[in-house]
Amino acid sequence: MKFVDLLDRTIKKNNSLLCVGLDVDVERIPKDIPAGKNIIFDFTRRIIDQTNELVCAYKPNSAFYERYGLVGIEALLKTIEYAHKFDIPVILDAKRGDIGHSSEAYAQAAFQYLKADAITVSPYMGADSIEPFTRHEDKGVFILCLTSNPGSADLQTGLPHPLYLTVAEKVKQWNVRGNCGVVVGATKPDQLKEVHDIVGDLPILIPGVGAQGGDLALSVKYGGKRAIINASRSIIYAADPKAEAEKLRTEINQCR
Amino acid sequence: MKFVDLLDRTIKKNNSLLCVGLDVDVERIPKDIPAGKNIIFDFTRRIIDQTNELVCAYKPNSAFYERYGLVGIEALLKTIEYAHKFDIPVILDAKRGDIGHSSEAYAQAAFQYLKADAITVSPYMGADSIEPFTRHEDKGVFILCLTSNPGSADLQTGLPHPLYLTVAEKVKQWNVRGNCGVVVGATKPDQLKEVHDIVGDLPILIPGVGAQGGDLALSVKYGGKRAIINASRSIIYAADPKAEAEKLRTEINQCR
Repeated sequence: MKFVDLLDRTIKKNNSLLCVGLDVDVERIPKDIPAGKNIIFDFTRRIIDQTNELVCAYKPNSAFYERYGLVGIEALLKTIEYAHKFDIPVILDAKRGDIGHSSEAYAQAAFQYLKADAITVSPYMGADSIEPFTRHEDKGVFILCLTSNPGSADLQTGLPHPLYLTVAEKVKQWNVRGNCGVVVGATKPDQLKEVHDIVGDLPILIPGVGAQGGDLALSVKYGGKRAIINASRSIIYAADPKAEAEKLRTEINQCR
Repeated sequence: MKFVDLLDRTIKKNNSLLCVGLDVDVERIPKDIPAGKNIIFDFTRRIIDQTNELVCAYKPNSAFYERYGLVGIEALLKTIEYAHKFDIPVILDAKRGDIGHSSEAYAQAAFQYLKADAITVSPYMGADSIEPFTRHEDKGVFILCLTSNPGSADLQTGLPHPLYLTVAEKVKQWNVRGNCGVVVGATKPDQLKEVHDIVGDLPILIPGVGAQGGDLALSVKYGGKRAIINASRSIIYAADPKAEAEKLRTEINQCR
C-alpha cells in the first residue's frame, strides 16, 4: 500500500491528525519500567499501547535511538515493528540527504532494514539526493522546508526569495511519483499557508506544537487535509500519555 | 587533543592530504574475504592496514554501514576503533542536522558512542542545529557548503547571492570554538577558491576527485593547507588499494 493511502486510512480510522513523536530519553522514562537493555522498547511499546487508537502516525527520531548505539537501533527496529501490529504508519525522522548512491544506502537502511513507511530528508543537496528515496514508490518522503527552530532564520527565511519557498517549488517538481511531503514547523503558520498554497494537499508534517509552543489552530487550518500535527515530549513524558494524546486529538479536531 | 591538531599531526607524519573514504558495499568486497558477519570489518581492517601510513584521515560514510543494520553499526564501531590504533583521525560522514536536542543526540551517537573525531553536518536548519556538535570542543564539525553532485545547483548555487557563500560566511560566525570546517566538492574548483577566501585555513573536506571526476590539481591549490582530499571507491575497490593510495598521495603532493 502506498504511504499516502496508509496515512489517509489511519487518519480516517482514528479520526486523527495527531502524530506522536517517539523521542526516547532514558533519563525521563517512568521509573516503573525496569532498567536494562529492553528499557527503550518497553517504554515505546507502552506509549504505542496507550495511543494507537488516537494517532495517524508515529515519528521516532533516529537521533534518540542512535545515541544508545546497538541497543538503541534494536529498540528502533522493534518499535517500528510493534507500531505495524496496529497498522499505524511510521515516519522515521532522520533528516538524511547525500549524493545518489549514499542516499540510496540511507533509503535501504530506513525502508528495507528498519521498515519505516516514510522518512524525513534534507533538501540541501538537491534533486539527486532526494530521488533515491522517492524511487521507493510506496514510501513517503518528507522534505524539510521550513523548520520550527530559531536557526531556520539563517538560511531558510533570510533571503529576498526565501529558500523555503524555493524548496516548496522544488518539491512539486520532485514529486514525480506522488510520494513527497514537506516539513513545516508549527511556529510559522503564515509561511505554512504559503507552502500549502504551493504544494497543495501533499502530506505536511508539522512539528512544534508541544514543547516548542507552535500555533495549533492555525497549523491545522493552514496545513490542509493531510496536516500531520506532531507532538513528542509533551505526550510521551506526560503523567498520562493516553489522556494527553486524547486531549490533543480533540483540540486538533475542533480546528478542522 | 583537538581535532585540528590531530589532523595537522597526521598530515605531517604521513606527508599526506589524502583521506580514504570507507564506503562499504558488500557486493564489491574482494572474494578472498570470507562471507559472514565480520565481512565488513575484515574489509575495512585490510584497507586500514594497507593505507594507514598514506592518509591524513579516514571517512566512513554512515549510510553504507546503516544499511546493514546492527551488523553494519558494529562494523563501523570496530572500524573507527581500529583506525585509532594507528592514530588516524576519523571523520564520520553522516550529514546530520536537526533541532537542538536532536542534534545533541546525534553528536552523542557520533562522538561518544562511535568515538568519531569529526562529523559532517548539514547547515539547512541553521545555527542552533550546528552548535550541539561544535559544543564538543575537541571534535571537528564539517559543514556542507558546496557539494560535488549535480543537485547542488538546486539550492546551493542557483541564487543571486549563492547559498554556499552564505553558508561559508555563517561558518565563520559559527566557528566560535575553532573546530569548524567545510565540505566543498572537487568538481567546483573556482567556488572552492571563493570559499577558501572566506573561511581561510579551516579544514576543507573535498570529496569528488575519484569516481566523480573532480579537479585534483586545483582542489589542492585552492583548498589551502588543510585541504583534505577524499577518494573512496577509486581506492578501496582498486586491485591494489595501497598502490592506488600511494599514487594519489604523490599526485596530491606534486600539486602542493
